[in-house]
Amino acid sequence: MPDALPAHLADRLARRESNYLLFGLTPPRHSVTAEEAQGIADVTLERLAGLDLDGLLIYDIVDESERTDASRPFPYLPTLDPAEYLAHHLGAWDKSVIVYRCVGKYTQPQLETWLHDQDPQRVSTVFVGAASREMPVETTLAQAQALRSRSRPAVLLGGVAIPERHAAGAEEHVRLLAKVDRGCSFFITQVVYDAQAARNLVSDYYYACRDRGLEPAPVIFTLSVCGSLKTLEFLRWLGVDVPRWMENALRHSDDTLEASSAHCLATAKDLAEFCRSLEMPFGFSVESVSIRRAEIEAAVVLAGRLRAEVL
Amino acid sequence: MPDALPAHLADRLARRESNYLLFGLTPPRHSVTAEEAQGIADVTLERLAGLDLDGLLIYDIVDESERTDASRPFPYLPTLDPAEYLAHHLGAWDKSVIVYRCVGKYTQPQLETWLHDQDPQRVSTVFVGAASREMPVETTLAQAQALRSRSRPAVLLGGVAIPERHAAGAEEHVRLLAKVDRGCSFFITQVVYDAQAARNLVSDYYYACRDRGLEPAPVIFTLSVCGSLKTLEFLRWLGVDVPRWMENALRHSDDTLEASSAHCLATAKDLAEFCRSLEMPFGFSVESVSIRRAEIEAAVVLAGRLRAEVL
Repeated sequence: MPDALPAHLADRLARRESNYLLFGLTPPRHSVTAEEAQGIADVTLERLAGLDLDGLLIYDIVDESERTDASRPFPYLPTLDPAEYLAHHLGAWDKSVIVYRCVGKYTQPQLETWLHDQDPQRVSTVFVGAASREMPVETTLAQAQALRSRSRPAVLLGGVAIPERHAAGAEEHVRLLAKVDRGCSFFITQVVYDAQAARNLVSDYYYACRDRGLEPAPVIFTLSVCGSLKTLEFLRWLGVDVPRWMENALRHSDDTLEASSAHCLATAKDLAEFCRSLEMPFGFSVESVSIRRAEIEAAVVLAGRLRAEVL
Repeated sequence: MPDALPAHLADRLARRESNYLLFGLTPPRHSVTAEEAQGIADVTLERLAGLDLDGLLIYDIVDESERTDASRPFPYLPTLDPAEYLAHHLGAWDKSVIVYRCVGKYTQPQLETWLHDQDPQRVSTVFVGAASREMPVETTLAQAQALRSRSRPAVLLGGVAIPERHAAGAEEHVRLLAKVDRGCSFFITQVVYDAQAARNLVSDYYYACRDRGLEPAPVIFTLSVCGSLKTLEFLRWLGVDVPRWMENALRHSDDTLEASSAHCLATAKDLAEFCRSLEMPFGFSVESVSIRRAEIEAAVVLAGRLRAEVL
């Protein structure tokens, strides 16, 4: 048995192990050339090389303007398909990857082909449903989940968890249980700025599992630095509950990146301590919702500190 | 100059110093004999003797059943007047005291006489208004504040701060500014179980002061252990926002006192760090909303840990 080799992310998630560190990437804009996309991929992997990551997350971006009437702080620009970006530009990445799929964009045959083409040891996926009921879709979330269970269960499936939705209706943990029934083996949260809401969700989910004799699936908390009020507005537009004191600190700080990184680290310590006290498997994913270089670099520094100080 | 003597609490609060540790007491029931009241006072002072307290808080309890339609988890039992309890039974306490006054219970001449009888070096006061508009009052909060400013400003006045009210309307910091205008030199919060709401209030208050060129008044956070679900229900009835995860932990814990004490300590560390980062003066007051011996003893232990680990 080659037990010197570390287990793959998918195996560890399936075994409900804990302490993951992921880094979330948004693919380059659709308008870039193949060379430019490769250049971006190369620079990104170079930036991440020093981090002891368990894997990458690659987001699938759709125009969510139908979700809300509020105007979008950053313009929506179509990005490369995450599966294409992985296949064509991230070949040099030899660790695990979790590829997001906004399933409404794809037909069922397209999704099925993609699932079959993946190496389940290396690639897992997170299916995301439509942002609003009004959005026309090729495939619903339920259809995509059923398709995977039926035709390609070897590819590990994750689901999205939204603490803010739990704060509003206190039913998000019931959604998580239902997602596990439909094949999900792990969860990735929306960006967390309010540790309390995340604690409430994890706590309700944990005890609901216990009442049912289930082992809870790992929850990976997404953290994002915030380097400007514009980024903060964008986080709010995405539905993230940024606390008032955090907004005040950012408005009055000379260095909002430093203030928000410190907050992310404190949030991570808080959530790690909480999950450990419950023996609830968890991890963190760091992303930058902005493409500003300073914010991306701060996200890399944050990931390094999470590994060194929290995980 | 006798600078070896520590400054009195009132002087320190007036100078907007920081790092207070207070202990909150509810006077014995009205039905006890004078001897029983003295016995309770003696036991209490004995329990508190080992703590390095800056002062006592003595609450003034009124029947608040008109404030809410929910039934009260513990029955309302009239208690001794806090001023009487101090005058007749706490003579052995040689440090500072902050006496609550539910001003609606007293006529203006009664309040005025009491204020004049106090030694401002030893006794400060917190005026509390009626819990509901429907409650008939002898003196309104505004009348009591004006009376003190006019006839006995030497007795330091504090006000109540309610983070939950801030969470609902985000205007509590404006109330604090108005209370300072009407003579308040410090604030004492309702029991804090949600550090986020307290941070939001302090942050908004701090920056509002800064915008107006004012030095913020000290805010003293009240912490209370919670040894049973009944106590938790009572905290909720009082309007305290106890987070879901805390409720779950208490429901599933063999030792809710230990779980809630750990939470109080974590909350205190969080708030202390936050206030220090702003250079905002702060302190803590520990109370037990229950009269169960185990809860009172846990409150004493918590106060000791606050002094040793946080203040």
